[in-house]
Amino acid sequence: MAVGEANVDFYNVSGVRLAAISAGIISEALDVVLFEFVEGSSTAGIFTQSLFAAAPVILGKEHLERFTPRYFLVNSGNANAATGDLGMADALDCCKATSQLTGTRPEQTLPFSTGVIGERLPVEKITAVIAELTENLEEGNWLQAATGIMTTDTRPKIASRRFEVAGASVTITGIAKGAGMIQPNMATMLSYIATDAKCDPALLKELLMGAAEKSFNRITVDSDTSTNDSCMLTATGASGVDLSVDATRAIFLVELTSLMIELAQGVIRDAEGATKFVAVTVEAGPSNDVCLEMAYAIANSPLMKTAIFASDANWGRIVMAIGKAKVDIDIKKLDIYIGDVCLMSGGGKAPDYTEASGAKVMEDEEITITVRLNAGDCQQTVWTSDLSHEYVRINAEYRT
Amino acid sequence: MAVGEANVDFYNVSGVRLAAISAGIISEALDVVLFEFVEGSSTAGIFTQSLFAAAPVILGKEHLERFTPRYFLVNSGNANAATGDLGMADALDCCKATSQLTGTRPEQTLPFSTGVIGERLPVEKITAVIAELTENLEEGNWLQAATGIMTTDTRPKIASRRFEVAGASVTITGIAKGAGMIQPNMATMLSYIATDAKCDPALLKELLMGAAEKSFNRITVDSDTSTNDSCMLTATGASGVDLSVDATRAIFLVELTSLMIELAQGVIRDAEGATKFVAVTVEAGPSNDVCLEMAYAIANSPLMKTAIFASDANWGRIVMAIGKAKVDIDIKKLDIYIGDVCLMSGGGKAPDYTEASGAKVMEDEEITITVRLNAGDCQQTVWTSDLSHEYVRINAEYRT
Repeated sequence: MAVGEANVDFYNVSGVRLAAISAGIISEALDVVLFEFVEGSSTAGIFTQSLFAAAPVILGKEHLERFTPRYFLVNSGNANAATGDLGMADALDCCKATSQLTGTRPEQTLPFSTGVIGERLPVEKITAVIAELTENLEEGNWLQAATGIMTTDTRPKIASRRFEVAGASVTITGIAKGAGMIQPNMATMLSYIATDAKCDPALLKELLMGAAEKSFNRITVDSDTSTNDSCMLTATGASGVDLSVDATRAIFLVELTSLMIELAQGVIRDAEGATKFVAVTVEAGPSNDVCLEMAYAIANSPLMKTAIFASDANWGRIVMAIGKAKVDIDIKKLDIYIGDVCLMSGGGKAPDYTEASGAKVMEDEEITITVRLNAGDCQQTVWTSDLSHEYVRINAEYRT
Repeated sequence: MAVGEANVDFYNVSGVRLAAISAGIISEALDVVLFEFVEGSSTAGIFTQSLFAAAPVILGKEHLERFTPRYFLVNSGNANAATGDLGMADALDCCKATSQLTGTRPEQTLPFSTGVIGERLPVEKITAVIAELTENLEEGNWLQAATGIMTTDTRPKIASRRFEVAGASVTITGIAKGAGMIQPNMATMLSYIATDAKCDPALLKELLMGAAEKSFNRITVDSDTSTNDSCMLTATGASGVDLSVDATRAIFLVELTSLMIELAQGVIRDAEGATKFVAVTVEAGPSNDVCLEMAYAIANSPLMKTAIFASDANWGRIVMAIGKAKVDIDIKKLDIYIGDVCLMSGGGKAPDYTEASGAKVMEDEEITITVRLNAGDCQQTVWTSDLSHEYVRINAEYRT
């Protein structure tokens, strides 16, 4: 199941080559991906804040601090998380194998893993395919890479932008994976974005964090945060367009944010068992924190999500979810809308609301819930999916 | 579905009479309950902290502050929540009708409602049955009352204690309802407890809050908090045993807490779609707050709950859930057990752990998850259920 059509079009990014292959970690599907970045590229990353950050996350952060990455080695099927010191050694072995075959330092490879938590990484299966991966590197392999990082995803997620700035053409292309265990707390799952703009790593990280705050940090499938969340942005500089110029950077950030919102929404549209795409907006609030707390209270409520699944205009569930938000607001001032139908105002059911009007708007595949607090001018939007039978089936049978 | 056998035995409480009847609010099931307390009884209550506290909660709290309750009028099938000023008037009309038929003040009746949120209360159906309820009041009707307050509950929940103290016999009997929308934030759903001990209202509230912190405030089905949570404790004084005596009160509190834990666990055993009863204990922690934050992070994780439903020893899910707790701990010091099987120690899989040993203990209907932080001597336990297909079905079809 998934909501809406998925994009499959993209632009190559000059200076980035990719390859994907099956190492047979779980099945015959593509499960190991290699990214290569041209020398001189800058990379920024944001990572999970889980206490149990996986071995590749810990090692990758260390490598990123000390050297400029030339390769990302990504596997799906095994998260190499909660694997202790052995997991750290396994991740390092993968980097060393890449290093030997590419003539770079081991620290210039960043390792990434996603899949089952708590199992040893099958290092030999992965290192056995690296030589072939290096031979297959091509600029046009983004869609294969997007497929190779999938776990319970039903389709690859890719987004791309090409725009003119400072008299030159700039490209940004990115991929993401993730379908469950999604309430990123910094980044989400795995996402790799590259551009041919030129940018130093510190500024690149600032841009990445700014865009993540409006995209990956605004989605939730099930309130669960992964041990492996990583979101990477690499700038090859091949276009010659320099992001240290304020006006150029502003345009770039708009495009980057738009692309990352598309990827983040793509994760939600393909969420485990999703039959609906739900945008929850809390507006006219006294602060962004209040708006966000309430938006997440609604978006993470299992009862709200099952009502959405059932296309049931049981707006009491939304009221209940608002009620559990830990904020101080006057509920008599509050208006609630589903789509353009007002459900509630003045603390009770809206005068014009009818069960038929509510039922009609709940039938849509894309649903917007808007809560207007009438207590300020702040606004936040969070995107989520419904809670379906299929979510339970997928997660009950995940390892079987 | 429900886990284990339910208790149906109880002792009458001298000074308390009850009756239950069907007013046809949704079906022909018992749906209106009347409690009568002998003159001179004391009552304490704790209520939901939802921003959208229902009309009967708001009105009941006002009545309780100003007068000594003689009657509780409870209906299931309609929560009278998010009903604004009309809902307040409806709740008051029910109190007035009880007042007229019993010769007491309207403020001496506390109204309670549970069921669908956002619909007007069918006042006429309720007031039409009050006369018959008053005629049917009996000391022995506790089980009928427990049945009359049910919504998606599959069975009544009743617990009772009789013990000797200060040379006399004291009885406590209580009932509870609740199966979904359960993460009480003060009380849970509806629970009514009565004793023939003698106690002033202020002390009674202290006892009730102390026991609730160890029972109803330690359970979660789905992290959702009801608009109507209320937990009431009434002392008729008929036994003559006075709780102002320290030694007597201490014994009483132990019995009350035990009874309320039985009721709270009864709610979880009968949780919507429950096939497992799960106790999550976080121990050897630096503070109760840290232990509780982590216990709830585990207990509310949809991915942990679906793994439990599937009897899948996917302990990575527990690790993930621990990881999202917003606490500062050293994961290398931490031990994780399911039942008596150690899954993890030193930041990785426990040396002796095998998939077979994990699978065996996950087959049980009653599962204990213990996380030992080895960082102090505080401990907290939270009880929860699994997340099953049936939970989704019940809540998707709730209004159909």
